Amino acid sequence: MTHQSDITDYLQSFIEGLVVGNVNYAVISPGSRSTPLSLLLHREPNIKTFVEVDERSAAFFALGLAKATLKPVVLVCTSGTAAANYFPAICEAQASGVPLIVLTTDRPHELRQVAASQTMDQLNLFNQQVKFFAEMALPEATDTMRQYAFWQGRRMPEIATQIPSGPVHLNFPLREPLLPDLSPKKQHHPHYISHLKGQMQLDDNDLKYLADMLNRQAGVFVLGGGLTVEETALWVKLAIKLNWPIMGDPLSNLDNCGIQSDLIMSQADLFISELTDEKPTSVFRVGRLPVSKNIMLWLKGLSIEDTIVIEVDEKGYWEDSLRQGRLMITSNSRTLVKQLLTSSYPSEAAMDFWTNRWINAQKQTQKIVKEHLQSIDLSEITASRLVHETMPKDGNLFLSNSMAIRHVERFSQPTKKAFNVYGNRGVNGIDGIISTALGICAANPDKQNVLLIGDLATYHDMNGLQLAKAYQLSLTIVLLNNNGGGIFSYLSQNQLEASDFEPLFGTPLEMDFSLVAQLYGADYYLADSLDGLKKRLMSTQHSPHFQIIEVQDNRERNVQLLDDIMQAIKGSL
Amino acid sequence: MTHQSDITDYLQSFIEGLVVGNVNYAVISPGSRSTPLSLLLHREPNIKTFVEVDERSAAFFALGLAKATLKPVVLVCTSGTAAANYFPAICEAQASGVPLIVLTTDRPHELRQVAASQTMDQLNLFNQQVKFFAEMALPEATDTMRQYAFWQGRRMPEIATQIPSGPVHLNFPLREPLLPDLSPKKQHHPHYISHLKGQMQLDDNDLKYLADMLNRQAGVFVLGGGLTVEETALWVKLAIKLNWPIMGDPLSNLDNCGIQSDLIMSQADLFISELTDEKPTSVFRVGRLPVSKNIMLWLKGLSIEDTIVIEVDEKGYWEDSLRQGRLMITSNSRTLVKQLLTSSYPSEAAMDFWTNRWINAQKQTQKIVKEHLQSIDLSEITASRLVHETMPKDGNLFLSNSMAIRHVERFSQPTKKAFNVYGNRGVNGIDGIISTALGICAANPDKQNVLLIGDLATYHDMNGLQLAKAYQLSLTIVLLNNNGGGIFSYLSQNQLEASDFEPLFGTPLEMDFSLVAQLYGADYYLADSLDGLKKRLMSTQHSPHFQIIEVQDNRERNVQLLDDIMQAIKGSL
Repeated sequence: MTHQSDITDYLQSFIEGLVVGNVNYAVISPGSRSTPLSLLLHREPNIKTFVEVDERSAAFFALGLAKATLKPVVLVCTSGTAAANYFPAICEAQASGVPLIVLTTDRPHELRQVAASQTMDQLNLFNQQVKFFAEMALPEATDTMRQYAFWQGRRMPEIATQIPSGPVHLNFPLREPLLPDLSPKKQHHPHYISHLKGQMQLDDNDLKYLADMLNRQAGVFVLGGGLTVEETALWVKLAIKLNWPIMGDPLSNLDNCGIQSDLIMSQADLFISELTDEKPTSVFRVGRLPVSKNIMLWLKGLSIEDTIVIEVDEKGYWEDSLRQGRLMITSNSRTLVKQLLTSSYPSEAAMDFWTNRWINAQKQTQKIVKEHLQSIDLSEITASRLVHETMPKDGNLFLSNSMAIRHVERFSQPTKKAFNVYGNRGVNGIDGIISTALGICAANPDKQNVLLIGDLATYHDMNGLQLAKAYQLSLTIVLLNNNGGGIFSYLSQNQLEASDFEPLFGTPLEMDFSLVAQLYGADYYLADSLDGLKKRLMSTQHSPHFQIIEVQDNRERNVQLLDDIMQAIKGSL
Repeated sequence: MTHQSDITDYLQSFIEGLVVGNVNYAVISPGSRSTPLSLLLHREPNIKTFVEVDERSAAFFALGLAKATLKPVVLVCTSGTAAANYFPAICEAQASGVPLIVLTTDRPHELRQVAASQTMDQLNLFNQQVKFFAEMALPEATDTMRQYAFWQGRRMPEIATQIPSGPVHLNFPLREPLLPDLSPKKQHHPHYISHLKGQMQLDDNDLKYLADMLNRQAGVFVLGGGLTVEETALWVKLAIKLNWPIMGDPLSNLDNCGIQSDLIMSQADLFISELTDEKPTSVFRVGRLPVSKNIMLWLKGLSIEDTIVIEVDEKGYWEDSLRQGRLMITSNSRTLVKQLLTSSYPSEAAMDFWTNRWINAQKQTQKIVKEHLQSIDLSEITASRLVHETMPKDGNLFLSNSMAIRHVERFSQPTKKAFNVYGNRGVNGIDGIISTALGICAANPDKQNVLLIGDLATYHDMNGLQLAKAYQLSLTIVLLNNNGGGIFSYLSQNQLEASDFEPLFGTPLEMDFSLVAQLYGADYYLADSLDGLKKRLMSTQHSPHFQIIEVQDNRERNVQLLDDIMQAIKGSL
């Protein structure tokens, strides 16, 4: 027999644990079984709650909040398929190390496996896609059980953020009556816990060993996703100290870390295939593997005899699909770069032939790109470049899979304004993009928040737009509408006959996005020129409001443009 | 090293297995890794393919196709979160025993767990929510491996449909190059397999034992979901033979099995709470537990001393959350009812006081309902009753969770026209409803297909509407729009203050559904009267076309109406 006071005191203790553990946000989806948890979280002044009916969008929204704040975010849903809708976002969180605290509510044991309404087996529901699962005990208000509930709530944010960070899942069996006692809560004086938290770092001997490797000429940095703007700026400073070229994909924030330098190889994806004769002595990889297929192919072409590949990974999982690493460093990368910058080793290096060769390639490529883009006005490519170029300081730019991030990878240029670039590159899905971007926006309401996205990804997570409407989130969506799956036109599938290609890969949606804007209360603007787009983008920075800016294009034209540019670079380098 | 011929011959053999196993439909979501499987299925003349970008909707669409055809349907998607989007539909399929063959494609082993792009652990991805999982071998075109692939394809439909039926999952590791050979395929002459399939049925002695139980007065039938119209008609005939009242929820098809009889207790949910003094000697339960909470409470109130509860369940899992069964029958229920109808036992029984008491309650309730509904014109309740009433013979009516099915449960009347009622009552989610209904519609393009649904469920699966647009499916959606989660106004949550209730449970969407209709190319009609709604419903039967008919209502009014009716019944019986 569960009493109202059992459920109230027990769950309140759990929530106190979350609060002491510095949880700031909870995203709730409506349901009956989750009633006490939802109500008590809603009433908790230290936790801001959002409500979203579609659990899939709710979970990606929580993912965005967690990405923006670098802190775990709570999800709450009712029993049954509700939790199953969380699965895509949980897989992405697990793959990209984003901390989430997933709280599912469930029937108690006596109502399981007997076809009770809205009941399914929720134990280990997410299996290997969460880093921790526990079934909670039934609510009881004894001292022991309140302490247990507090302790579970308190340690969940720690477990979720501990390296490798990721989603954790607790399943709460709850008996009726489900309405908690909402009278002003008693103070339970939970024991506050002090916490000294160590981190992975090299000692001085190891650091010297590494510095010796870096005191070589003909090195290059390759940055990937998972680095903050601040950290990337430190790696650029190290590149300047060593006089090594540095390349990185959009999620490395290299082009927008606030530093402009000739050493930044913004267009590496476009020219690197022409540099196969250049064998580096060292490649220093930080963060995830790069998005660029051309950079990956170039790396793959290096031999152990010529090059030593150094990889930093705090997790220690040696996640390298190229399996090239020869010096593996298990360390917090931010701590490492600070150590390398402040110690006397490695020493500064002068400009050399190697570095000049790269700088020249980058400059030539920039010139060729500029010439080609001048001849066209508005396109997916020029719009993507412009969106990156016009981002203000401290803004947040979210790049959707699959083409948005590639356009920015190829065509963005370094800017002095430091701002954040985000993407969902754990598993690279086109699902949940709008909701994730809105989560980042909700955590940064005073900043400029822009999402660059294609039409398929917009359709896939259209429900996420309800969050923008309900919470008046001032996201600017720049929608690259090529009426279908643009990426396949760049891949081998483009050899197929139209009768195979269009239904299976082209998949045109024929969707009128001005109606979508109307449905969700977004301002809508159809860009008719690059200049018009620029004016619109600039104006949104002064009066932020939820809006959709559509850029219409066709899939073939951009493939051709990229091809022309690659040919010109080939001829020039 | 995988060659194009390996991938082609191997997958072609697998598909031949599916074809010989009588698979008719595949639902494909676009992606790169799945290219060879998608292309070969698309080219297979014996399998009709549908393509849908949102995998969540794709999976529910497959669920609908499988429900309508009672045969397994294939799902194909690419690697990564794509498969995770299948999860809600898979949970529903597992809980309701719907056969699905889920084919996920994956990177080969050498690209796993090393942060390769769009890769996550897909082994046992759906864990306990599928009845079978296997990782396929890498494609090879040897005789052994072609035979293996054929055999796997051939037995998947058998495993999926074997009791307890449900979803099966195969994960295909595929190496590049991914384009198969599309030149006219060789005939591989797979060995065709003959198959004699037994089923659970009682022998004559057991049947006599059961018949003795049924030769008692004061018995009652309770039918639940999972019965076809034809089977339910047989149970009604048995009820007539025994002169027992028979009740059943909408998914039992009782009101629309083609037989009208005084013994059919259509309004049992409304009056059964007044019959607590009537103790049956026997309750014969067939199918899932009833949807009605009042019927469940009445059942729960019965004691072992007075009543023997008989339960038929082919699975033999004894799924009874009331744990009341005293005679458990593991048999195919359709076979059982045929045996009981054609054998000399049980014998026919005459009308008695018990049965008359029920018939009287049902008639009184019908009268009270009629009087109350006359005073109001258009409402959620009257519209729901009308939708059921106007269904033509052989049509398909899909009832959404959570209120649509309850309105029909309470207010529908028996009709002579036999038609099919469907719902997703495995886990009772409000997700995927539109797509499931569209799957049923796609399998029955020449029939009248109607979906009765609320605004939250419509929003949750709005992406499913793209399937109606792309494949010109002539579904008639009757949308009960009470601007939020109607069910909570009937539950204890309605005691909450508005500041807690509205954001967490009311959750108004403020959505203009005429725009939704426009977005997806549906005809739109806002019903302004019950008569207008009736005319519109009748006209759609003559020129079927994808349409949304909106009925606007408010949540409080229907709670009040139900309350008034229940009070009147209480005073009358």
